[in-house]
Amino acid sequence: MSDPTTIEPELRPEAEPIPLRDANDNLSAAFMDALERAIEQRDAEAARRLTDDLHEADLGAILEQLASEQRPALIELLGDSFDFTALTELDETTRVEILEDLSPETVADGVRDLDSDDAVYILEDLDQEEREEILAQIPSVERIALKRSLDYPEDSAGRRMQTEFIAIAPFWTVGQTGDYLREAEELPEAFHEVFVVDPSYRLLGRVGLDRLLRAKRTQRIEELVDESPQLVHATDELESVARLFQRYNLISAAVVDESGRLVGLMTIDDVVDVIEEEADRDIKRLAGVGDEEMSDRLWDIIKSRLPWLCINLVTAILASAVIGLFQGELQRMVALAVLMPIVASQGGNAGTQTMTVAVRALATRALGPHNAMRVVGRELLVGLLNGVFFAVIVAVMAILRFGIVDLGVVIAAAMIINLIAASLGGILIPLALNKLKADPAVASGAFVTTITDLVGFFSFLGFAALWFG
Amino acid sequence: MSDPTTIEPELRPEAEPIPLRDANDNLSAAFMDALERAIEQRDAEAARRLTDDLHEADLGAILEQLASEQRPALIELLGDSFDFTALTELDETTRVEILEDLSPETVADGVRDLDSDDAVYILEDLDQEEREEILAQIPSVERIALKRSLDYPEDSAGRRMQTEFIAIAPFWTVGQTGDYLREAEELPEAFHEVFVVDPSYRLLGRVGLDRLLRAKRTQRIEELVDESPQLVHATDELESVARLFQRYNLISAAVVDESGRLVGLMTIDDVVDVIEEEADRDIKRLAGVGDEEMSDRLWDIIKSRLPWLCINLVTAILASAVIGLFQGELQRMVALAVLMPIVASQGGNAGTQTMTVAVRALATRALGPHNAMRVVGRELLVGLLNGVFFAVIVAVMAILRFGIVDLGVVIAAAMIINLIAASLGGILIPLALNKLKADPAVASGAFVTTITDLVGFFSFLGFAALWFG
Repeated sequence: MSDPTTIEPELRPEAEPIPLRDANDNLSAAFMDALERAIEQRDAEAARRLTDDLHEADLGAILEQLASEQRPALIELLGDSFDFTALTELDETTRVEILEDLSPETVADGVRDLDSDDAVYILEDLDQEEREEILAQIPSVERIALKRSLDYPEDSAGRRMQTEFIAIAPFWTVGQTGDYLREAEELPEAFHEVFVVDPSYRLLGRVGLDRLLRAKRTQRIEELVDESPQLVHATDELESVARLFQRYNLISAAVVDESGRLVGLMTIDDVVDVIEEEADRDIKRLAGVGDEEMSDRLWDIIKSRLPWLCINLVTAILASAVIGLFQGELQRMVALAVLMPIVASQGGNAGTQTMTVAVRALATRALGPHNAMRVVGRELLVGLLNGVFFAVIVAVMAILRFGIVDLGVVIAAAMIINLIAASLGGILIPLALNKLKADPAVASGAFVTTITDLVGFFSFLGFAALWFG
Repeated sequence: MSDPTTIEPELRPEAEPIPLRDANDNLSAAFMDALERAIEQRDAEAARRLTDDLHEADLGAILEQLASEQRPALIELLGDSFDFTALTELDETTRVEILEDLSPETVADGVRDLDSDDAVYILEDLDQEEREEILAQIPSVERIALKRSLDYPEDSAGRRMQTEFIAIAPFWTVGQTGDYLREAEELPEAFHEVFVVDPSYRLLGRVGLDRLLRAKRTQRIEELVDESPQLVHATDELESVARLFQRYNLISAAVVDESGRLVGLMTIDDVVDVIEEEADRDIKRLAGVGDEEMSDRLWDIIKSRLPWLCINLVTAILASAVIGLFQGELQRMVALAVLMPIVASQGGNAGTQTMTVAVRALATRALGPHNAMRVVGRELLVGLLNGVFFAVIVAVMAILRFGIVDLGVVIAAAMIINLIAASLGGILIPLALNKLKADPAVASGAFVTTITDLVGFFSFLGFAALWFG
């Protein structure tokens, strides 16, 4: 891969360029040290030289890894040469922290030059008051566009759309369109298509630039227009927009308001972030860590993890209560205490496996009403087969260890029961939560391990009580 | 969102169109029933009417949800009107199953018309012999291009690149380029840029179509060219290509071979799939289910899950052995058996939380050498604080339940120790695996729960033995 991130030492021709990233694609220690030195010494020239040619994404990655107090220091040091787009590449926590440290004037200055979607991305995390303060310093045309985007619900297409786009009339010719594009001054930085609208800005269709380039100058736009492009409504949830882009391999899509008027443009690069965020959220929810990010502060981390740990404590206490029912048996045969965690633990893991596959399949729509019953049947079989397999192993081990054949029979029976419970719980709970319009990733884990703990301890100790009692 | 998937009943104007998807974006039962009926009755006309206007992605989703024997039946029923691109939308298992059921002639016919990247996607999963049989029936020019792609390593850019692209000379004018594009016959279906190459096809740069459209006809291409576009080498791993696209918000990138010659084009739509697959793999590896897909057969599922369950069994047996060391204490005080799973379970969950955040942060490069120590320190503090919080709760509960104050002290101490162990294990194990170039997502889970189980049981029962013994 080409290395776009080597710093050209234009201003100090004698110096070696410091590579931004090391062999593992991490930010290099040499670069970060040089930058930190420049910040500490308030050496604006050195800081600019290091960051001047950087892509906004790399600048964002650098900010993320600096200590909190160095971030606004770097931005103020860079002054006008700091590209505010870099802030869109940060975790929310870091972004808000930085914005709170900067003066409203600095933020307003920086945000004014951005594409509308980037500006909204930065403004939306701020609280009402700060946001108003910054908006007040932005010229009214841009302010109105930003306010309109901010009026759409969070996580809707309206929040992420770009309001810079090219719209032309259907009766224009290709030549006229070309002249317009050559002469117009306020065009988006890069574009892949032009939109065709009627006088009231209702969307009639789109023309890709490749079609435009291949057409004769005299051809009319209406002959070239693709009249049924994929559409997004400004109020659509980003999650469903992402699914649309992904399913139909879209590069961009027009955004329309309730009356079909063209109001913006969604592009794949924004959607890629949504896709990654979604998968990320699923992973983290399954592990019970909320929307935690690497940059979160100690207290946010504890807040994000505590609810799940509290739920788990309730589960563990329930399990412990089940064990408490069998104190007599445990007293008589201490081997039960030694063996019981094995049954519960295998169940917990098997249940988590089934649940994880089910949660992801529901998210990608690979699991739906049409194949749900087939999948449940298959999982039942998986649970039974795994159950028998591990039942034999643990039975043999238990017999060898304690020399009691009956103990082998009891643990084998409990293992089969618990692995079937794990399979069924792992598939039925996500399906049920999905049916109830809850996010299966959030709550499935707690339910599934509750089931496998309770069934595991109860079946093992219960069988023991029946068999030996 | 517009509904692009309604079936227009052109051939039977009296019939209502059957909507493809229901309100939840799942394939509708009515549609699937109608299609299954058409397949059973071998009604080619009805099958075509239902599927004719469908996007390849929807056709793929439909195939995925049909029963195995109905899939090749549908493809044969549709004949020439079946778009083989749909096969690229399937899970690997389903695709291979279908390809094995179809005749090599049918596959060769279908693959010939595809873009090279789609054709490779379909051919690469087949074994050597079948692949050769199909390639033998494809005209030599296309065959050579396909073979060249297939010679690149699996999961490399060379395998996913498209070999259809537009390359022009730097001394051409914009007018000449326009004429060429208008007159050329074999152009890619859609394109967003043209590449500029020297006579030996070494890449000189790219020109976006928007720049081309806005330039005068007399301007030379060399004046417009972007000379340092993001590059991908054909041997680059898809994972690093995906990171490049994502970081720099790319729509496409040129692919060059070792000598800098332009050999292909990677586009964002292929990369989106890689990004989603990666996140998906992380989720599944964390849960220990390999690369399992919804369509996998029973035996594949068991094979994918068994290794992790076996590892977990070893962990559970180790934990059980630790408990076995304290049989005397358990016999004397059965309350220990009742309470011990609480300590282990809280540790397991806290460890999984830390580990999940760490694994994701490593994958996205948000966690690197520069901030590792800071993060370890923070996790240590999280473990300590959570430990104290839950120590107090469980101590109070244990005292209330069993009326033994000392039991509260013992469980509190064990809880603090185990939650610190969980935090440290959760962060240090992924960091260590990453340093050893192993995938932290695969193995972290087993190590972390082993630690929390062993530390949990050992500290609780050990403290009890010291305190009461």
